Amino acid sequence: MHKLFTLIDKNYDEMVKMRRHLHEYPELSFEEVETPAYIAAFHRELGHEVREHVGGRGVVAVLHGGKPGKTVALRADFDALAIQEENDVPYKSKVAGKMHACGHDGHTATLLGLAKALHVLKEEIAGNIVFIHQHAEEIAPGGAKPMIEDGCLDGVDVIFGTHLWAPTPLGEILVREGAIMAAADKVEITIYGKGGHGAEPHHSIDAVALASQFVVNAQQLISRRIDPLKSAVLTIGHFEAINPFNVIAERVVLAGTIRTFEEEVRTQLEQELEAVLHATCLAFGASYDYRYTRGYPSVYNHSKETAFVTHLASTVPGVEQVKTCPPFMVGEDFAYYLEKVPGTFFMTGAKKPEWETAFPHHHARFDFDERAMLIAAKTLGKATFTYLNSHE
Amino acid sequence: MHKLFTLIDKNYDEMVKMRRHLHEYPELSFEEVETPAYIAAFHRELGHEVREHVGGRGVVAVLHGGKPGKTVALRADFDALAIQEENDVPYKSKVAGKMHACGHDGHTATLLGLAKALHVLKEEIAGNIVFIHQHAEEIAPGGAKPMIEDGCLDGVDVIFGTHLWAPTPLGEILVREGAIMAAADKVEITIYGKGGHGAEPHHSIDAVALASQFVVNAQQLISRRIDPLKSAVLTIGHFEAINPFNVIAERVVLAGTIRTFEEEVRTQLEQELEAVLHATCLAFGASYDYRYTRGYPSVYNHSKETAFVTHLASTVPGVEQVKTCPPFMVGEDFAYYLEKVPGTFFMTGAKKPEWETAFPHHHARFDFDERAMLIAAKTLGKATFTYLNSHE
Amino acid sequence: MHKLFTLIDKNYDEMVKMRRHLHEYPELSFEEVETPAYIAAFHRELGHEVREHVGGRGVVAVLHGGKPGKTVALRADFDALAIQEENDVPYKSKVAGKMHACGHDGHTATLLGLAKALHVLKEEIAGNIVFIHQHAEEIAPGGAKPMIEDGCLDGVDVIFGTHLWAPTPLGEILVREGAIMAAADKVEITIYGKGGHGAEPHHSIDAVALASQFVVNAQQLISRRIDPLKSAVLTIGHFEAINPFNVIAERVVLAGTIRTFEEEVRTQLEQELEAVLHATCLAFGASYDYRYTRGYPSVYNHSKETAFVTHLASTVPGVEQVKTCPPFMVGEDFAYYLEKVPGTFFMTGAKKPEWETAFPHHHARFDFDERAMLIAAKTLGKATFTYLNSHE
Amino acid sequence: MHKLFTLIDKNYDEMVKMRRHLHEYPELSFEEVETPAYIAAFHRELGHEVREHVGGRGVVAVLHGGKPGKTVALRADFDALAIQEENDVPYKSKVAGKMHACGHDGHTATLLGLAKALHVLKEEIAGNIVFIHQHAEEIAPGGAKPMIEDGCLDGVDVIFGTHLWAPTPLGEILVREGAIMAAADKVEITIYGKGGHGAEPHHSIDAVALASQFVVNAQQLISRRIDPLKSAVLTIGHFEAINPFNVIAERVVLAGTIRTFEEEVRTQLEQELEAVLHATCLAFGASYDYRYTRGYPSVYNHSKETAFVTHLASTVPGVEQVKTCPPFMVGEDFAYYLEKVPGTFFMTGAKKPEWETAFPHHHARFDFDERAMLIAAKTLGKATFTYLNSHE
Repeated sequence: MHKLFTLIDKNYDEMVKMRRHLHEYPELSFEEVETPAYIAAFHRELGHEVREHVGGRGVVAVLHGGKPGKTVALRADFDALAIQEENDVPYKSKVAGKMHACGHDGHTATLLGLAKALHVLKEEIAGNIVFIHQHAEEIAPGGAKPMIEDGCLDGVDVIFGTHLWAPTPLGEILVREGAIMAAADKVEITIYGKGGHGAEPHHSIDAVALASQFVVNAQQLISRRIDPLKSAVLTIGHFEAINPFNVIAERVVLAGTIRTFEEEVRTQLEQELEAVLHATCLAFGASYDYRYTRGYPSVYNHSKETAFVTHLASTVPGVEQVKTCPPFMVGEDFAYYLEKVPGTFFMTGAKKPEWETAFPHHHARFDFDERAMLIAAKTLGKATFTYLNSHE
Repeated sequence: MHKLFTLIDKNYDEMVKMRRHLHEYPELSFEEVETPAYIAAFHRELGHEVREHVGGRGVVAVLHGGKPGKTVALRADFDALAIQEENDVPYKSKVAGKMHACGHDGHTATLLGLAKALHVLKEEIAGNIVFIHQHAEEIAPGGAKPMIEDGCLDGVDVIFGTHLWAPTPLGEILVREGAIMAAADKVEITIYGKGGHGAEPHHSIDAVALASQFVVNAQQLISRRIDPLKSAVLTIGHFEAINPFNVIAERVVLAGTIRTFEEEVRTQLEQELEAVLHATCLAFGASYDYRYTRGYPSVYNHSKETAFVTHLASTVPGVEQVKTCPPFMVGEDFAYYLEKVPGTFFMTGAKKPEWETAFPHHHARFDFDERAMLIAAKTLGKATFTYLNSHE
Repeated sequence: MHKLFTLIDKNYDEMVKMRRHLHEYPELSFEEVETPAYIAAFHRELGHEVREHVGGRGVVAVLHGGKPGKTVALRADFDALAIQEENDVPYKSKVAGKMHACGHDGHTATLLGLAKALHVLKEEIAGNIVFIHQHAEEIAPGGAKPMIEDGCLDGVDVIFGTHLWAPTPLGEILVREGAIMAAADKVEITIYGKGGHGAEPHHSIDAVALASQFVVNAQQLISRRIDPLKSAVLTIGHFEAINPFNVIAERVVLAGTIRTFEEEVRTQLEQELEAVLHATCLAFGASYDYRYTRGYPSVYNHSKETAFVTHLASTVPGVEQVKTCPPFMVGEDFAYYLEKVPGTFFMTGAKKPEWETAFPHHHARFDFDERAMLIAAKTLGKATFTYLNSHE
Repeated sequence: MHKLFTLIDKNYDEMVKMRRHLHEYPELSFEEVETPAYIAAFHRELGHEVREHVGGRGVVAVLHGGKPGKTVALRADFDALAIQEENDVPYKSKVAGKMHACGHDGHTATLLGLAKALHVLKEEIAGNIVFIHQHAEEIAPGGAKPMIEDGCLDGVDVIFGTHLWAPTPLGEILVREGAIMAAADKVEITIYGKGGHGAEPHHSIDAVALASQFVVNAQQLISRRIDPLKSAVLTIGHFEAINPFNVIAERVVLAGTIRTFEEEVRTQLEQELEAVLHATCLAFGASYDYRYTRGYPSVYNHSKETAFVTHLASTVPGVEQVKTCPPFMVGEDFAYYLEKVPGTFFMTGAKKPEWETAFPHHHARFDFDERAMLIAAKTLGKATFTYLNSHE
């Protein structure tokens, strides 16, 4: 492994350069043009087999090792966010209102730097490596699903992925068997009462009163219907009844999010939430629309592959600690890959030692310690190399 | 009384003409210019003592009877509404977006026609008659209060007023001792929680959840805290939390109306509503703004004067029935006059016999049977004449 | 009328004696034996036509006037309550645990004293007088209904009744057109959830949580579904879930009362309360029993007869004031008589001048000013005499 | 280790005999007399240093190894439950209404059998072994706390304990780092409103309506205030308002349980639950009593010691699987030992292969596969021996 690590170290300056270049020219989800072209060119130069426009805007490159064997996939996403960067750095975004505020620039640079290092060791590798450069992770329905449908996992035996993670100190790796990221769904509801004069409730069906009852009663789903050892969140963030003060509301529009880890908890909430809505409306003669939109499913790390990475990560240079983390309540479309093939997704700590706290992901001042790219590349690289050559 | 009734009958055509003229040229509350000028000119021509710009835009005219005695005030309001008329009538409003949709044109024509008739009988009258032509009844704080402060009730012993009432058939008079119209107040509330990510309720204070609890809990004030023999309405018509679906609301803005008849019920609700708000916020660490704005108080008819009008109305020509009505949940600034002097306010039925139901007041197709002006004028006239000459 | 009043005055001492005798020997509803026998004997001695066991334990006596005419019914109830008297008076109840704590002893003595006086004037009376002595007013389904079914109102043109009313000062008569006493109904509910360990809500259906939601949500029927100008009360007084603290309740038993004045409000609440219960259970998969038991309907005073008594009462000796009262939220089976024939029911003030406040009806220290019997007898007597002789 | 396992196997028949003897003579928590005497006699016969009445009724025996070293504590509880046994077995409880329905008989027999085996190997042991036989685990405040205060952990370096676990198949060991059993607390609440007639809510403060609001609102603590990644349960199992249906409740008594794993979640709920209660009462002018009684804290397994046992258990004869389990929502006063010294608590599967499901702990038909005692003894024995001799 020493050879691989040395090669990656040699590529570090280029990785930083690439990351900063991507950072300066962010492209939004489903609008990526220059980024995938940049990635494809890099792999072509290395001589990898490259397929563009996979599932829309994705890029898939394949490195064939010198010996026959299994196939490992590595994934990096490359889309940016509609945020105006507020950092004062030399590599600040040059595109107004757009910014790599989630580290996908780093993910891409990591994977390219690693690809170049692995390429050098080609002949020693027993099997194939598929580099999945994915567009559109930030916005559902995401790029993972169409890329899979377009064949990016064909022949793949295992997949590894990581997220540079600014809240966690550089040197830490976070792993977790089972659910590591949540299913993040959306619910949109309209309650139709009967409008009227504020002084005549008996001639009306008060949609504000009903929707308030619904919001209160629905919380009991979380506290009384879900296994307390499982996690679930129901947030109604939007409650809209814009009326003169002396009018009884005819209609209320609600919108909210549901976060879960297990498929059966998710389905239970989708169904029981409508049951509570139905009953609340029924009691007072109102009607409703209910629209539940599933976002990404929960990222569910496979047991054996997680243990494998957990074990090997602890001896990667720069890694001081490998920790089992609690799951995160945010979503990731890496979930779709793990529904198809075994694998694991981990977090690579990227908080600079001098920061007391990092700006959170999706913040206008988000940034990360670029040395995390080294650790991420080495961990993914060691996992790939070890996996392939132990299955030789 | 026969003489008075005959004189009023003779004035009917002119009353209709005046009503239709006013109908064609409506002026909004606090913007009246031509209407008060028209009224003042009419009284001046009769030789009445006239004061303009009373309390702003009001007109007060005084008829001094031939004999000494008490002073009766009669009130008619003259402002219009910001409604685009949809009636297809020869006297349709000529001002775009403005309309006499509450019958104040009729109130004014009634009072002018009556004034002209009483003027003829001047020498037989023992006392004085004050004609209060009030601006701005439709919009709080209204014209009554400033007109009173500007002296329009000085020296007045009793006041009578009526409302042409389209939902009630022509020929009916509605009376009620005590509260006949409600106090209509307004409440504006902001609940300040703590915003956050929809997946992290424990780091937030969910203003939508709290405001919903408040709306639900506040209804118990009506059902559990108010004497069930008394009437009270609390309607929250406006509930505003405009947020992305996956964000916990930081702030909710509520607005609503409170309707009551008794001052102590009104005060109880004003206080206890804040108590519920305070407690709801306290429980979960939120804060709030609470702004309770009193509209007109309840119109409270005096007992003796109501019995007086009830009795005499039954023999006014055209009156087929005098009914005790339940109170109305709407407001009227006639309330202020009755806080100062004894008197009564009644409804004069104005639904045309051929209508199955009338368009409601404030509707773009509102209209009334103009013969109701005759009945109103005769009832007010008889009350005035009888009152003055019985106190001679 | 002078003659009648003088005769009643002469009977006063006997009325007091009779009242005190009845007070000493109270009999519970549906258990009356000695009391109806006592009443029947009294009327027989006067020579009245007497029928016993009417509708169970009622007594009906008829006085035929010397001239033909209409028929007036007068009603007095005679049952007592299961209360241990705590008054220290010479005529204290001699029966342990039973007491005339609602004044029915006085009602009976009043009617007997009045009967004796009217008997003397027999020849001057144009028509018939039916004395209805009713058993079992205190406990639904009451004695009025079976007595009516057994013919006590046959041939009756009008009915009058009064209640001695301790909270109101002696000298006052309370009248009210329309609803004067409420319909008082009962609701019994069982909610069946699914019991379980307190730590495992997801395997249970928490009946306490659901019943609490129901109690909260049902209050919105009162505040949002009933015309605010009408009165309605819903009280859940009984909530029973007796369990160890760490067990999820399988079952909750609720009981409550519903008070209304109008039949349509009553029916609306009976139906919508079940709708709310149904919906609350439906939302969380629970089931329920719902049992709504109608008590007496609202006592609804007829307009003409109420005006008649209101007018004549004001000149009855001892009457200082005749007041229109708000309705009372308690029940009375006088309601059934007024569903069949016109009439009115009024309250005769019976608070002693020296009392600051009277003990309420049904209290162990309830008592009344016996002079109220005089006023009640004279008012009922004048109403009867005037009615009959004006319809001669 | 082979020697130790062989010795334990040789003691198996005696362990079964002891377990069955204890099963026939159960003694309730804080009433144990014969059981501790029996245990003390056994250890004395082996020549162990024995201390009785530790912290009340506990027994502590010490085995000093032949070589100097660390000190390991092993704990078994020995109290029974107030349950009438319904099993039909030769060793059925001979004491009416009392039963070893939680396996503490087995815990004790396991520890005695193990003690006898270790005694034989005495000279090979580097350090000391403290056998903690604890009384009163079933009823808070429990025996662990006073035994610790009485010195049972003095000089102890590490502690191990296990629970025979009937729901889990024989051959499985359940382990878990961190919280494995919950803090199980109790809350008792009285809400004081103001009683009254069911028809007069405005003169009352309806305790049933308020308590219902509280139950509903308090559920939002679980769903909105607690980190969704942490577990918490709030169950109100007892709701007592026993009143006639037509009376407004003056008082409601509530009781419930709170289950948590983390101390800060526990403290948060203890405080915020009172805040919600306080606010609910404040809003409507009621008052309350609030009594929160902490049960045992959460059993929190130390990381290193749990990994240690997890690792070694997998090669204990009879152990087919070592599983990480989710935490259990029940309580155990083993928690107190782990607050003082490092250690771990694990579950030893004890379901007989022929049972489809076992009767749950605390059931009148509870029983377990006695061979689980062998597995438990070997696992504890191996942990003890390995720990001591690796720290030599």
